[in-house]
Amino acid sequence: MNDPFAPNEIKITVIGGGTGSFTLLSALKNHTRQIAAVVNMVDDGGSTGVLRDELGVLPPGDVRQCLVALSDSPKIRDLFNYRFDEGTFQGHAFGNLLLTALEKMTGSFSEAVETASEILRVNGVVIPATLDNVRLKMEWAEASTILHGERIIDADFFKYDPRKANLSLVPAARANPTALAAIQQADLIVIAPGDLYTSLGPLLAINGVGEALQKTDATIMYVSNLVTKQGQTAGFCVSDHAAEIERFIGGEVLDYVLYNKQVPTNELARRYKQEHAYLVEVDKEVLVTKKYKSVGGNFLGAVVEEHDSDVLPVTRSLIRHDSEAIARALIELYETARDPNFNSLSL
Amino acid sequence: MNDPFAPNEIKITVIGGGTGSFTLLSALKNHTRQIAAVVNMVDDGGSTGVLRDELGVLPPGDVRQCLVALSDSPKIRDLFNYRFDEGTFQGHAFGNLLLTALEKMTGSFSEAVETASEILRVNGVVIPATLDNVRLKMEWAEASTILHGERIIDADFFKYDPRKANLSLVPAARANPTALAAIQQADLIVIAPGDLYTSLGPLLAINGVGEALQKTDATIMYVSNLVTKQGQTAGFCVSDHAAEIERFIGGEVLDYVLYNKQVPTNELARRYKQEHAYLVEVDKEVLVTKKYKSVGGNFLGAVVEEHDSDVLPVTRSLIRHDSEAIARALIELYETARDPNFNSLSL
Repeated sequence: MNDPFAPNEIKITVIGGGTGSFTLLSALKNHTRQIAAVVNMVDDGGSTGVLRDELGVLPPGDVRQCLVALSDSPKIRDLFNYRFDEGTFQGHAFGNLLLTALEKMTGSFSEAVETASEILRVNGVVIPATLDNVRLKMEWAEASTILHGERIIDADFFKYDPRKANLSLVPAARANPTALAAIQQADLIVIAPGDLYTSLGPLLAINGVGEALQKTDATIMYVSNLVTKQGQTAGFCVSDHAAEIERFIGGEVLDYVLYNKQVPTNELARRYKQEHAYLVEVDKEVLVTKKYKSVGGNFLGAVVEEHDSDVLPVTRSLIRHDSEAIARALIELYETARDPNFNSLSL
Repeated sequence: MNDPFAPNEIKITVIGGGTGSFTLLSALKNHTRQIAAVVNMVDDGGSTGVLRDELGVLPPGDVRQCLVALSDSPKIRDLFNYRFDEGTFQGHAFGNLLLTALEKMTGSFSEAVETASEILRVNGVVIPATLDNVRLKMEWAEASTILHGERIIDADFFKYDPRKANLSLVPAARANPTALAAIQQADLIVIAPGDLYTSLGPLLAINGVGEALQKTDATIMYVSNLVTKQGQTAGFCVSDHAAEIERFIGGEVLDYVLYNKQVPTNELARRYKQEHAYLVEVDKEVLVTKKYKSVGGNFLGAVVEEHDSDVLPVTRSLIRHDSEAIARALIELYETARDPNFNSLSL
């Protein structure tokens, strides 16, 4: 197993793969150069889905965006996110083609990610959670209902309680040894905000990842989602999100759960309503009974305009965390918690 | 006009665009880091043709190969030459897609070439001869025959003498000012071996290029082709090749013409015969009457196996110059000619 970190610096491993991860990585890289991003590998929609289907490659999309988030080269970052808007290549992000070409050429997705990292001048490392070519499966035992594929599951309005569903990968995925090393050797592990059933769950369900999170000496922090997902997590409070994360991991390993406590301005509230977005409720009475410490902060970001060129074009949701505020909170929390005089926190 | 060179070094500008240029650039870069490659821009076949037709971009193929020839990064060089062999992208060289994405993104082919040069860690500069989107036209006045497009002309068996044909670009092409600067500021200009009517001619026919070659103080050397092209230049001797080059330029500007004088081994001769390849004849009796000095050398390369991974997969012709020998001869000739004690040369 390779040590993904350089010696003598605070080592942060971020676990995730969706927009929440990309924006958090962008913010965290201003605080440390020692970042490992462990990335979910079940995406099968859009440009990524076409490349998987046509060329049999591993999903490049989320890896590309984590690479871009950690890149030091604005020009090449723009190139990686560029999407052809006409002709045969319409809809394909250029970085996906680059990762695909490198994988086809070398026969190794790891090598592809490494070369792409050099081209993008990436700070830190991006680590596919698994190097097996797998698809996501979600099944409810009682209801004998099965959903196949990330794209399908992502778009589904669940008929049954997803907390009773089993997430698995087909065929069974083996964890990437470098991902396990990043979990084992980190000082701080951040489970990024993200979709529970199509992003975080499928990553944590990989054989070996849950065990590694149970064994590591790292401080483990989970950043709860800002809004619920229609048809999937409607009504989920902060503790429900954290409970699902610990269910996927298979143990009560979270040390801290961060959540937003900021009340939106009237203008923000109006925009959220337009978007049918519902803020995740903070169920303090439940949170205080948990093994983990829960910490609220002012994490509401500006509402993102859909064509804002400063933001990665990765999702249609216009509601964002203030990732810079979260990054500061994570670092402060980590450093304060290690202080023997630690008493209380104000975020 | 930008100075494409760094100060205080011998400056070589190579003019061309086909296999002859790529291999010569690869060899010359071992002798100087001060190389400018001025590249023909009329290619409209293969992957390049599809990209031009579908996306309206300038032709990336020859530029890509010159960039690759001057690159210091073997891994990224392989990536640029990688061709997808199935699916939507089948047949496309990755570097073509990269240049295309950069041009679509920035709206500037020059900027695309500059960024690609950074990614490839290119020694020297690659300069599109024109930044106008043009197609090649070849016409015979007497015969009122017109051929349109590089791909068409390249595959044609000429019915009439091409020496009486007029080559032009449609619409009329303006020279790239940086290309003119590279001609003006060079110490040595090398017109690389290449197809007369689909590579060198169309480049020299650009408005301003011929004038720049007539005005420059640089020493101008032309490396004659090794073999004739079936249906186009059959029977052309060395002086015929040089005469066409000077016709395109519009003046007797050549200082030196280099040609191969090496007799093939029996084995080589057998392979040439298999290929229906005819070596260009050296018509010494004509050459001695010319204003330029003509210099013969042992320039026969090994016969290239079609799947030899060390060679750029750019052509089906298996007969190659020994580019390293030509590069040495060019440099030696240039340095000897500047020596006031210059007397004779043995190459």
